Amino acid sequence: MNEALKLLSLMVSREADAALIISNENRRYFTGFVSSLGYLLVTKEEAYLLVDFRYAQAAREQASGCEVISYTSLSESLGELIGSAGAKSIMLEGSAFTLNEAERIDSILGKYGAESIKGSGLDRIISKMRIVKTSSETEKIMKAQRITERALADTLKLIKEGVREKDIALELEYLMRRGGAEGVSFDLIVISGEKTSMPHGVPGDRTFRRGDFITFDIGATYKGYHSDMTRTYALGEVNQKQKRVYATVLDAQKRALEAVHGGALCSEVDAAARDHIYQAGYEGFFGHSTGHGVGLEIHEAPFVSSKSDTILQSGMVITIEPGIYIPGEFGVRIEDMVVVTGDGYINLAAAPKELIVL
Amino acid sequence: MNEALKLLSLMVSREADAALIISNENRRYFTGFVSSLGYLLVTKEEAYLLVDFRYAQAAREQASGCEVISYTSLSESLGELIGSAGAKSIMLEGSAFTLNEAERIDSILGKYGAESIKGSGLDRIISKMRIVKTSSETEKIMKAQRITERALADTLKLIKEGVREKDIALELEYLMRRGGAEGVSFDLIVISGEKTSMPHGVPGDRTFRRGDFITFDIGATYKGYHSDMTRTYALGEVNQKQKRVYATVLDAQKRALEAVHGGALCSEVDAAARDHIYQAGYEGFFGHSTGHGVGLEIHEAPFVSSKSDTILQSGMVITIEPGIYIPGEFGVRIEDMVVVTGDGYINLAAAPKELIVL
Repeated sequence: MNEALKLLSLMVSREADAALIISNENRRYFTGFVSSLGYLLVTKEEAYLLVDFRYAQAAREQASGCEVISYTSLSESLGELIGSAGAKSIMLEGSAFTLNEAERIDSILGKYGAESIKGSGLDRIISKMRIVKTSSETEKIMKAQRITERALADTLKLIKEGVREKDIALELEYLMRRGGAEGVSFDLIVISGEKTSMPHGVPGDRTFRRGDFITFDIGATYKGYHSDMTRTYALGEVNQKQKRVYATVLDAQKRALEAVHGGALCSEVDAAARDHIYQAGYEGFFGHSTGHGVGLEIHEAPFVSSKSDTILQSGMVITIEPGIYIPGEFGVRIEDMVVVTGDGYINLAAAPKELIVL
Repeated sequence: MNEALKLLSLMVSREADAALIISNENRRYFTGFVSSLGYLLVTKEEAYLLVDFRYAQAAREQASGCEVISYTSLSESLGELIGSAGAKSIMLEGSAFTLNEAERIDSILGKYGAESIKGSGLDRIISKMRIVKTSSETEKIMKAQRITERALADTLKLIKEGVREKDIALELEYLMRRGGAEGVSFDLIVISGEKTSMPHGVPGDRTFRRGDFITFDIGATYKGYHSDMTRTYALGEVNQKQKRVYATVLDAQKRALEAVHGGALCSEVDAAARDHIYQAGYEGFFGHSTGHGVGLEIHEAPFVSSKSDTILQSGMVITIEPGIYIPGEFGVRIEDMVVVTGDGYINLAAAPKELIVL
């Protein structure tokens, strides 16, 4: 077992005889092997990666810290391992197993006198391990961010009246991948005009017009790790209302950033942005939380929301992304991704944040 | 309610008071609205799409056949709807709800005196609706296939010794999206040389060499619908063993296609390809099934496997994709996507299948 698997095994052993992992991210986190299917069984003594025919060869070459088992019958292979380990209780990832998958595993376990432990126990153990990033993980996130920013700088040169949102989104993705990205962190958001009032708008056939706000919510993946950044630009000209909303969001974002440090409560960071926006008269126009953790998943713990009593720790990577959305008119969101330090943060985003009129 | 929702409501009403849908594909299938989060509640009389703040505006503009409800508290909104419909039993999608999501819903339902029905009942109802495509669905699949083939033809011109797999995969994806694809059906597979022996290999830094087989397993999405095709090409030259394996796979593929018609058993179609490959001496080198349905998901019912007793019906869209994989040497897979008709099939793939030496 590698270090991460040893720690997992130890933490699991307090609550059960074994753990069974099926989420792509967690299989990758613990073994380094990338696949879209497979079962990672971690007992007190050993870790086994069960894959089917299609992944067997690649898994043997690439998976770290575990024995690779190519199964024909999952039931037989899994049953045999559980039997020989004498495992009677197996924790499942409640956030990843579907009802049908859990039913299948339960029927296998039942045959071998074992049973599953559901709920969020295993999720919590793994989340605790993944919530603070190692420097090697942070490096990958930074690399993804650098790739994103370089591609964005080149893409901004293509923005002018009459160009379609979806064409810019595609060019940006292409440049990110030419620049070394494995892929995109999520379907890139490049939206304009009144569509910017939709926090999760989809790039479409709309063409840019003078006076538009254009929102880029973008990120790349690099070796499995994600980046996340939002910038809002104006095209050609900007009116007083747009300026005021932009300044309010930027101020709110700065206040939230100032609240970030090891030991701070997530809810305090959220409040720093939210209070400012509400006091400026935009209560009801900021309907999402202020940020979230970023890593092997684009949204992961910690969640920087008004309800979160999670305490920030050095090494966490989080976004700070307040916004104001005025239906039918426009919206503004500004998002940086930062590494939490003992007394503050390191901002991984270098792209300028003052209002730029393209 | 639209026609699909009415049919769903009717089929559900035989087993429960309501159904709750959370999978992206099924929400899209029934409402036409694209999002990554949301709950579609279908009662005997009504359909409701519950979305959070971020999707509210877009959902009101785009969702068909249902009332859009923007929720702050899912528990309150869902509970109120269930209460006013008098629904006591709610079917969940067993293939889509995670254990944690189901637990959350169960706790909401419990408060309102209702309970969930798990298992595969709702999956089966929806699969039965989605398994046969309407002509409008098939058109979208065809369009995705045409986009793929046009982009492939342009990409093949770039293939020569020394070019990297991942660069070709990226160019192909870029051209597909420039050609009108929404996205790719899956991470495109462009692999070469000994890597072709891995059915699910990942494009990497390997550069093409004379004598390589190069496998393209590729597909685009168009308005949510997928396409899927595999071609294996040779670069520069091809040896006798490569020729023999290629001819065997092509023959197997033709035999399977000949077995396709409305009324045929999926297992018979699989056997037509498999028996040929095994009789040619390659038993043990064809570890996956012969094909699968294609639609809003890249892999969906029916599954063309040795174990499937599903009967093919006119209007189903399936792949036929036998392969032979010789570890450490090379592999060959040839895949077409066809629409089943009463007496045969319409092949949606037009790209040539004889062995091409690039």
